[in-house]
Amino acid sequence: MRDRYRRIILLSQYLVAHPLTQSSLTELSHRFNVAKSTLSEDLLLIKETMEHEGLGKIESQVGVQGGIRYVPVLERKASAQALIRWCQKLSEPDRMMSDGFLYMTDLLFDPHWIDPMAQLLAVRFRDMGIEFVATVETKGIPLALACAGALGCQVVLLRRDNRLSEGSSLSINYLSGSSHRIQSMSLSRRTSVRGGRVLFVDDFMKAGGTAKAAEDLLLEFDATVCGVGVLVATVEPSEKLVGKFSSCLQWDGMGGSAPVPSGWAQALCESGVLQE
Amino acid sequence: MRDRYRRIILLSQYLVAHPLTQSSLTELSHRFNVAKSTLSEDLLLIKETMEHEGLGKIESQVGVQGGIRYVPVLERKASAQALIRWCQKLSEPDRMMSDGFLYMTDLLFDPHWIDPMAQLLAVRFRDMGIEFVATVETKGIPLALACAGALGCQVVLLRRDNRLSEGSSLSINYLSGSSHRIQSMSLSRRTSVRGGRVLFVDDFMKAGGTAKAAEDLLLEFDATVCGVGVLVATVEPSEKLVGKFSSCLQWDGMGGSAPVPSGWAQALCESGVLQE
Repeated sequence: MRDRYRRIILLSQYLVAHPLTQSSLTELSHRFNVAKSTLSEDLLLIKETMEHEGLGKIESQVGVQGGIRYVPVLERKASAQALIRWCQKLSEPDRMMSDGFLYMTDLLFDPHWIDPMAQLLAVRFRDMGIEFVATVETKGIPLALACAGALGCQVVLLRRDNRLSEGSSLSINYLSGSSHRIQSMSLSRRTSVRGGRVLFVDDFMKAGGTAKAAEDLLLEFDATVCGVGVLVATVEPSEKLVGKFSSCLQWDGMGGSAPVPSGWAQALCESGVLQE
Repeated sequence: MRDRYRRIILLSQYLVAHPLTQSSLTELSHRFNVAKSTLSEDLLLIKETMEHEGLGKIESQVGVQGGIRYVPVLERKASAQALIRWCQKLSEPDRMMSDGFLYMTDLLFDPHWIDPMAQLLAVRFRDMGIEFVATVETKGIPLALACAGALGCQVVLLRRDNRLSEGSSLSINYLSGSSHRIQSMSLSRRTSVRGGRVLFVDDFMKAGGTAKAAEDLLLEFDATVCGVGVLVATVEPSEKLVGKFSSCLQWDGMGGSAPVPSGWAQALCESGVLQE
């Protein structure tokens, strides 16, 4: 009896500590020194318990590549609270800057703040076969990395300028819709993104010029932007330069009001993931 | 009996999914709808099992602020393998660039590659009361974020130039030891780093000019750099501009040989954490 408790603790720890990682039954039965039949019973109990409580899914795949993996689900209550916390924090008067920006660098670089937002975006885009998350330096990087972690893929970094350490790169210039200045972005020819399905992520979107430019640059590498996810989008201009995008928060920058949660984000927190 | 299995699964999941997060017994007893005495027995079993297998520690603190938390430990075998994989990957001929750099952007932005290195640095520095991890944009950001995640703190981003979205900033210029060019870095006055204990993290170190400049800039905010951790340091110059630093890998860039694991990193993987 005590042995089974121990095994169940060890198995649960292993699965939860290695999210999205496929493990074969053979591998697990060696690791925990237990027969496959016993292991299967334990896994079934863990699966039933976690799924009943909505804590995560234990997915099994059959075949040679088969195995099981733990897929975390959105912690709905925590996500809803995080959305509200972001709105409150960003509405502090000294975060509104005179030039239509919000100061949020400190929050973007704090895992405690950014991880719940990345979870929301990851759930939103997780059934789209995303292979890479792309972002342009610098402030979108933490959100992009956390999304990539939640989706089990890597980040492709678009540079603002062509750096020595990137080798030869392809660059494009574009007119930033919000600042009306010419900006450039570049991607190393060594990138592994070629032909991939990409989620573009950034911290802030006004007109969407940066997202559009990223889409164009990635297209040069035969990569397809399947989705655009940002933390905050301004309400105006309502016509963005990219067709579809999802922002966690929306902000009526001109009106001086506080950011509010987007409809889809709010709905996701209320309805949960399994029912989506 | 079945109830206890379920409870143990839920408790294990909760603890492992929220590393470094303190939870009070009261909170947990409400969440899992169980008496504190029963909860304590379950927690003891989980603690003994995990610690016996070296999978993580369950730390309890008494008093009003008291509670328990899960502290992951280094996965020694996986860390040792990750060190070797990095050395092999970086020794591929087309990663050595003509100007004494290694191309590693793709690996730096892949959580699968960077997380194990961040774990090593986090273990190295975790008893030093680190309150912030600082880095200079751009390529050190993923390592810094992963270290911050493992240490339960946030990242302070030093910018290469003074950006509109940062508000007023303090800047310093310095002579880069390796490129012999004047560089600058700046930090927003809004930063919360004031008076804090800081770990400075970067991807690559030659002479250490960037680390030294970061130390100087942070000192202007009364923050103390208590440690410097980098992924790769070059063997030459052997005298760096910062006193002490820890690199996961060291590289004889001049000799054209492959990077090798640093002594402390190798030792950590062999001896484990609990014995350190």
